Amino acid sequence: MDIVPYLEKKKQAIDSMLEQIVPGEAEFPPRLHQAMRYALLARGKRLRPILALAAAEAVGGDPAAILKEACALELIHTYSLIHDDLPAMDNDAVRRGMPTTHTVFGEALAILAGDALLTEAFVILSGCLNSCSNPQPTIEIIKLIAEAAGSRGLIGGQVVDLESEGKDIDEHLLEYIHSHKTGCLITASILLGATLAGGSPEQLSRLRDYGSAVGLAFQITDDILDVTESTQTLGKTAGSDQKKKKATYPALYGIEEARRRQHALYATALAALQPFDEKADALRQIARYIIERTA
Amino acid sequence: MDIVPYLEKKKQAIDSMLEQIVPGEAEFPPRLHQAMRYALLARGKRLRPILALAAAEAVGGDPAAILKEACALELIHTYSLIHDDLPAMDNDAVRRGMPTTHTVFGEALAILAGDALLTEAFVILSGCLNSCSNPQPTIEIIKLIAEAAGSRGLIGGQVVDLESEGKDIDEHLLEYIHSHKTGCLITASILLGATLAGGSPEQLSRLRDYGSAVGLAFQITDDILDVTESTQTLGKTAGSDQKKKKATYPALYGIEEARRRQHALYATALAALQPFDEKADALRQIARYIIERTA
Repeated sequence: MDIVPYLEKKKQAIDSMLEQIVPGEAEFPPRLHQAMRYALLARGKRLRPILALAAAEAVGGDPAAILKEACALELIHTYSLIHDDLPAMDNDAVRRGMPTTHTVFGEALAILAGDALLTEAFVILSGCLNSCSNPQPTIEIIKLIAEAAGSRGLIGGQVVDLESEGKDIDEHLLEYIHSHKTGCLITASILLGATLAGGSPEQLSRLRDYGSAVGLAFQITDDILDVTESTQTLGKTAGSDQKKKKATYPALYGIEEARRRQHALYATALAALQPFDEKADALRQIARYIIERTA
Repeated sequence: MDIVPYLEKKKQAIDSMLEQIVPGEAEFPPRLHQAMRYALLARGKRLRPILALAAAEAVGGDPAAILKEACALELIHTYSLIHDDLPAMDNDAVRRGMPTTHTVFGEALAILAGDALLTEAFVILSGCLNSCSNPQPTIEIIKLIAEAAGSRGLIGGQVVDLESEGKDIDEHLLEYIHSHKTGCLITASILLGATLAGGSPEQLSRLRDYGSAVGLAFQITDDILDVTESTQTLGKTAGSDQKKKKATYPALYGIEEARRRQHALYATALAALQPFDEKADALRQIARYIIERTA
């Protein structure tokens, strides 16, 4: 299969759903909803919702049936980007090829728009209330996502990332940062799709291994691209890791060794998918895309 | 009934549960968990969880059975205080009688600790997973709380509050601010307790009216106390509304008229409880406490 048209088609479905599920710009208070939509509807890879849809397919489910819940992941990812970019954090001026939310709307509104996107994600995740016949998987995914996004997941990773700036850190701590800041939500995205589509415990366990591998591989790619690509290509400030003395794989091991690790993680991801049939081909191709992407 | 020992007893049960349900200070990353606990475990009235417990009692339920979910409300309330106090927002130095979270832990950690408390609330709300026999009410309360805390609720109120500083606003907008910034989560707290305890639709409808009345009354009291009490009594900076030219009831109507409105809301709250028996006496007394409190 060719992954490029697959990703493009899914991205269109996701963008169209995102457009619908958050309050409109005219809704009161308008500046808040404008800020939320500005950050959310900017160009994005939509990787987390795509992984959820591909995981639903891999276990034989209908991805269209879980599109809304998959989109909730993009709200959480976007909130984390808005807050990461704040002056008190990474203080970044460019994101997704546009000025960051706080530079356009001010700091207060950026903080609150992030808060609102995070909160709205749980409105969406609990929104099947009147349509779902079996509420059990809904509670399971809410717990899964909240844990992945919380202090033992994404936020924990962000805190250690900030604390480690300018310090010499070891491999153990670097892997903690990457697996938490990025890996937890990526793994949870895959499990969300597979859980809602009725995957078996054995399938979920293998998809968790796949998620851990591609989550870490994704972040190593980010580290490498920060060194090798331009701000224009990335849509965010290139070279910022080095400037802020961030802990990264290239900084700790050099680019060649970082690339070698990516390929080892790719092999791990493929091995985890071994018992799955061709319905998991999108996940296989996405693992490759994740290490080969240039933006 | 005497409400003072009732409130004290509930507060002790809540404080003890709060202590248990958030990660310990030693858990990695420690500074994040210290900041979360610093803000959460400071002295607080615990009004939202208490209202949830009292509402469970009012519909004949066992408050001990919903204590954990009630405590999730305090995490959301605390997150909103941490973010409200940030330099980019109200820029307050004192809260709950102590230096605000960002003055002790820095801005970045305060933002992230707030994010983490909000997220952890949904871990707790979805946590009945293995113990609850009927998951339907759990999804209902997650939706209820997320909506009340979101851009059409608490965050909407906070945005309009910030936007209105120093401006002349009318009664309509002032009521929007108060009913959203404070009222939505207070009403949701009451509905959380009543829903989990199996309240009937008729009971929930009346408790919603009770919640709207006491939520607004609570905020009017806050406005009055900001004028009449000291920083030491309040545990937060007194006179700050006037200093920031905030829209308040005393500023718009004068203190006497604000007091008259409080009493009208108290009457509305009692009327809403009319069909309930003595099991709703705590809610009745809390309505009175809300307008008579001095801190």
